[in-house]
Amino acid sequence: MDTTHAEETVSTELTPIWETIETLMSHDDREGLASLLSAVPASDRVHAVFHLSEEDQAALLRMLPAELAADLIEDVPDSHAAELIDALPVREAAEIVSELPSHEQADLLSELDDEDCEAILQCMDAEDAADARDLIGYDSDVAGGLMMKEFVSFPAITLISTVLAELTSHDDDYALYNAQYTYVLSTKTNRLLGVVRLRDLIMAADGATLRDVARKAEWVSVDTPVEDLAERFQATEMRTLPVVNKRRFLLGVVRRDQVNNALAERAEQDHLKSQGIISGEELRSMPVRIRAKHRLSWLTVNIGLNMLAASVIAAFEGTLESVIALAVFLPIVSDMSGCSGNQAVAVSMRELTLGIVKPADALRVWGKEAAVGALNGLALGVLLGAAAWAWKGNPYLGLVVGGALTLNTLIAVSLGGTIPLALKRFGVDPAVASGPVLTTVTDTCGFLLVLGFATLALPLL
Amino acid sequence: MDTTHAEETVSTELTPIWETIETLMSHDDREGLASLLSAVPASDRVHAVFHLSEEDQAALLRMLPAELAADLIEDVPDSHAAELIDALPVREAAEIVSELPSHEQADLLSELDDEDCEAILQCMDAEDAADARDLIGYDSDVAGGLMMKEFVSFPAITLISTVLAELTSHDDDYALYNAQYTYVLSTKTNRLLGVVRLRDLIMAADGATLRDVARKAEWVSVDTPVEDLAERFQATEMRTLPVVNKRRFLLGVVRRDQVNNALAERAEQDHLKSQGIISGEELRSMPVRIRAKHRLSWLTVNIGLNMLAASVIAAFEGTLESVIALAVFLPIVSDMSGCSGNQAVAVSMRELTLGIVKPADALRVWGKEAAVGALNGLALGVLLGAAAWAWKGNPYLGLVVGGALTLNTLIAVSLGGTIPLALKRFGVDPAVASGPVLTTVTDTCGFLLVLGFATLALPLL
Repeated sequence: MDTTHAEETVSTELTPIWETIETLMSHDDREGLASLLSAVPASDRVHAVFHLSEEDQAALLRMLPAELAADLIEDVPDSHAAELIDALPVREAAEIVSELPSHEQADLLSELDDEDCEAILQCMDAEDAADARDLIGYDSDVAGGLMMKEFVSFPAITLISTVLAELTSHDDDYALYNAQYTYVLSTKTNRLLGVVRLRDLIMAADGATLRDVARKAEWVSVDTPVEDLAERFQATEMRTLPVVNKRRFLLGVVRRDQVNNALAERAEQDHLKSQGIISGEELRSMPVRIRAKHRLSWLTVNIGLNMLAASVIAAFEGTLESVIALAVFLPIVSDMSGCSGNQAVAVSMRELTLGIVKPADALRVWGKEAAVGALNGLALGVLLGAAAWAWKGNPYLGLVVGGALTLNTLIAVSLGGTIPLALKRFGVDPAVASGPVLTTVTDTCGFLLVLGFATLALPLL
Repeated sequence: MDTTHAEETVSTELTPIWETIETLMSHDDREGLASLLSAVPASDRVHAVFHLSEEDQAALLRMLPAELAADLIEDVPDSHAAELIDALPVREAAEIVSELPSHEQADLLSELDDEDCEAILQCMDAEDAADARDLIGYDSDVAGGLMMKEFVSFPAITLISTVLAELTSHDDDYALYNAQYTYVLSTKTNRLLGVVRLRDLIMAADGATLRDVARKAEWVSVDTPVEDLAERFQATEMRTLPVVNKRRFLLGVVRRDQVNNALAERAEQDHLKSQGIISGEELRSMPVRIRAKHRLSWLTVNIGLNMLAASVIAAFEGTLESVIALAVFLPIVSDMSGCSGNQAVAVSMRELTLGIVKPADALRVWGKEAAVGALNGLALGVLLGAAAWAWKGNPYLGLVVGGALTLNTLIAVSLGGTIPLALKRFGVDPAVASGPVLTTVTDTCGFLLVLGFATLALPLL
């Protein structure tokens, strides 16, 4: 890092970076913007950009060189990037999109309306556009949706010396491809025949052709799901695998880190879903009305389930009237059972992801969780029971409340461990549904147990 | 895949794999075990292994060739792997550990007691042991804890032809290193001087030395935190960065995918923590008592907070006695506010991870969340109010309950967005604490609002 950059970074300690950006924008100082944005670390850059209004963000993209604008677009989440690209004139949007690698072009363009997407593709280099069109057609969680079009391939009869000359002459282009592997195609049918590592090219004898040094290529089919890709990469030392169609034509390559990123992204989405953000990604830069609507769709289902569970309380109004103190314990029992159950849900979700359990193991999991639920239920029940006894001076109140919590914890924990497996078996997304299903059952049971026990013990309370 | 393997895979469809493993083990059929376990896909292998008792798992490791045992060890989570290694005789443990790459050796050994760790190191090849000892000394979330010792380096005066001869002669060793880069050291001081890509070696003129073709190396310091490493990799096209100490001696290399994995792992841990699994990782294979204890530590804090919040209800016993129906609505209001608030927490946690918000943005986030909270609060409040009115035929009950939910949702959502930022600013882990802090506040406020409004409107109810 040279001193100019260092100084700029220091000067931005005083004024927030986004204000400096705004100042530079108002002076139309394009060079200043470009040098500022290439100097600040990526995380500060994203943070600063999200402080600008959405119009300013789009205006900023127009003032930067296309390459730098593409870097910014890569930094922000896809859905937001699509909105920004959408706000630009088609020609400028196309210039920026052209600077992205093919798989990111496809991710971005697939977030746009068909019409906008086509308009941008029309303005792009014909070959790039054809690649992007190709990739948009695949689901994002199969090899086709993850692959990139940047790869190196030659017919089998090509001389090694020709390949090396080609690789070293177009150095810049191939640097983008990060090509460690040269794929070898059948000279007649164009099918994938094999692969040659860069190292093998060096070792080859003079006058040899690719056919002489090629190894059998491992390949994946274009519709291989991302989990299977992860396994393939676990079993191989290759950093990149070729993606082929049914006739074994080479369509693209998929990189190990793209597969890992896709899995991490999915885990993140699952976490958001489990907390009631089921729309996938939500950013605060989205319009309030849309954010509220997405969240509300999950909340209304939940409030319905909640009322259902609470209606149990209404059935015991008589008991409640006689022992009004019970009203204090109802939310405690339902909340705590929910917490205990969610711990079990979290462990099951993780073990599902790691492949340690499968839906068929539900009974085994039930047994293991029941043991934990019984222990913790007993501990929490004794605690709450003692508190109730101490508060009202009535040991029977303690027994009712503590007993209900013990039993309900046992139910919540054994159910919490099993529900994700059961949902998965029946094809329901466990990340979205486990929480609501669990709390509805444990709330209902909790209210039933507290008020039921109390009704039985009414003369003693 | 050859036909023998395919047949074996089919035959295991009928009997579960773990039963086949048990049968082979009881016949001491080591070859059969080795060929079975190399034939099944990684995910089925993990699943099968976790069906065995822990003693059988350890026995299985002893019956497999060390290389295959090491593959299995790599497949299972670190803490479980450490337990298995711990259960083996030292010499056999050392044989398996020796087959792992250096950074995984370190991860595994650092989970063991100092004594067991040292015993295994004593049995290992001296050079490997020295590498592993070196790596164990670093925290797992800095470059030192992520780096591996497998890299290629030569003094600057080395002839390119010598390097190429070396790289191609030890093909197998270097394949493990997956070496795309050769690091160039100062001939006198041994400091890192530069880097040469494999491609540059090919292009070099006859008789050239490394010094002639080396580029300036980008490097990271050994104490660089993982977030900063992620940024460095975002800004470079290098797949691997060299790790140096203060004197710029080359200590190891860190790979892009190791950094990504470390970040994904942390996100996963954060998710578990937010659901009350604060011990880091829990596997059902751990003893019940330990699992129960870990979960209970978080639950007891939570039940304390819960009782605190519920004590508000006790203060309004008079109001509750007059309008017993309120007891039905107390859990609904507190649960629903918790759900709405947790949605905001999830969005803030994600934006923190993405670097889109920082603690200093709390006020801005508050404003944005308040808007969503007001909208959804109104929607949910009207819904619940209408239900209450319809049930008891009293519009004022609807107003009390609906108004309380509206206001409490507004509070919960604006707090939910802000709490993670505030906790982070004060150095508390937001993944662990956001949930309990949020629900304590929203429960308390929810009870206060419902019962407070009801007390004011008592003559009308």
